[in-house]
Amino acid sequence: MRDVYHEELDGISDKLVEMTRLVRSAMTRATTALLDADLPLAEQVISGDEQINQLDAEIEETVFDLMARQQPVAGDLRTLITSLRMSGDLERMGDLAVHLAKTARRRHPDPAVPPQVSVIVLEMGHVAERMAAKAGSVIASRDVAMALELDGDDDAMDRLHRKLFDVLLSPKWRHGVEPAVDITLAGRYFERFADHAVHVAENMVYLVTGQRPEEIA
Amino acid sequence: MRDVYHEELDGISDKLVEMTRLVRSAMTRATTALLDADLPLAEQVISGDEQINQLDAEIEETVFDLMARQQPVAGDLRTLITSLRMSGDLERMGDLAVHLAKTARRRHPDPAVPPQVSVIVLEMGHVAERMAAKAGSVIASRDVAMALELDGDDDAMDRLHRKLFDVLLSPKWRHGVEPAVDITLAGRYFERFADHAVHVAENMVYLVTGQRPEEIA
Repeated sequence: MRDVYHEELDGISDKLVEMTRLVRSAMTRATTALLDADLPLAEQVISGDEQINQLDAEIEETVFDLMARQQPVAGDLRTLITSLRMSGDLERMGDLAVHLAKTARRRHPDPAVPPQVSVIVLEMGHVAERMAAKAGSVIASRDVAMALELDGDDDAMDRLHRKLFDVLLSPKWRHGVEPAVDITLAGRYFERFADHAVHVAENMVYLVTGQRPEEIA
Repeated sequence: MRDVYHEELDGISDKLVEMTRLVRSAMTRATTALLDADLPLAEQVISGDEQINQLDAEIEETVFDLMARQQPVAGDLRTLITSLRMSGDLERMGDLAVHLAKTARRRHPDPAVPPQVSVIVLEMGHVAERMAAKAGSVIASRDVAMALELDGDDDAMDRLHRKLFDVLLSPKWRHGVEPAVDITLAGRYFERFADHAVHVAENMVYLVTGQRPEEIA
């Protein structure tokens, strides 16, 4: 039974990595859809979220099943609960990419992002993609050093977020209230996406070391 | 050992109810701080969040400790994991009240909410408070019917949220971009607060019935 058990644990880890790949790809497409007013790409993100939700549901089912059948000991319990949490964060990252895609769809055929902030939004997308990719590597490799790197990426995201508000609130903003509302929400979605990627990394640090990142760094 | 175990489970439930009381109170104060530009009230919400985070940390510690020591069976495991999730949602509701309070603090001595939307914001605050209070009753009573009521409250919140955007984006909006950005974010915080209250209720439904709310309603 123990072998099947550890195979199932590996299966959960593989699914988590697959989720990071899917949310990374959703974020890439959502950012492009926002910047290029690309409706088919937006629709792909929106319909593709089902696959991410499905993986989350499968992980939850496997975790509950293993807990009930195997009475796992402390270390394995920590792995199972941490997996549930990472899966929840990744599922939420998928939702946030969908929110971005829906913003693109709502404004189509106009672009939701005025040229005045397109470089900042593009950079936010890049940082978000990089963080999702790193979260995947962290889960696959259990690399604590890389997990701690996500804090730096999150700082970069926060700086971009502040820059975005600086432009929105400057006297030079020429686009009025409606695009400002869209951009405010989009900025919030990027920032929350990054926060969840950090949570994934923090959970892995906790799993590997038994310590919260703030106790290590 | 079993008696101590069930006492500890009751202790977790009491702490969850206490968290709902604290987030309800934080939401009441944050809404008033927003509408009245009341800085001391905003500061109370911001500094009071520590107590909510502390309860979340205590619940997590107790859950992990019980899991490791007691090897709980399936039903008790479900209770423990559900408690962790509810605690996570309540902790996040506290954060969202803090975000509202920080908006009030940032704009002080000006009010962050122009009179044109103050009635809508007041109503959003009332719905949010009611949902937090109901979440507390649901945890204390395990009342599935009341848990299902939170969906209707969430619909009311969504309607208010749409009304808020209608005003922001109407030609009659007279306050320009900066208050629109504040109100956009505030609206998002109220709406997410409500979503988390719904999650708490859904988790309780799952705990009591073994079914997700959509399978019952």
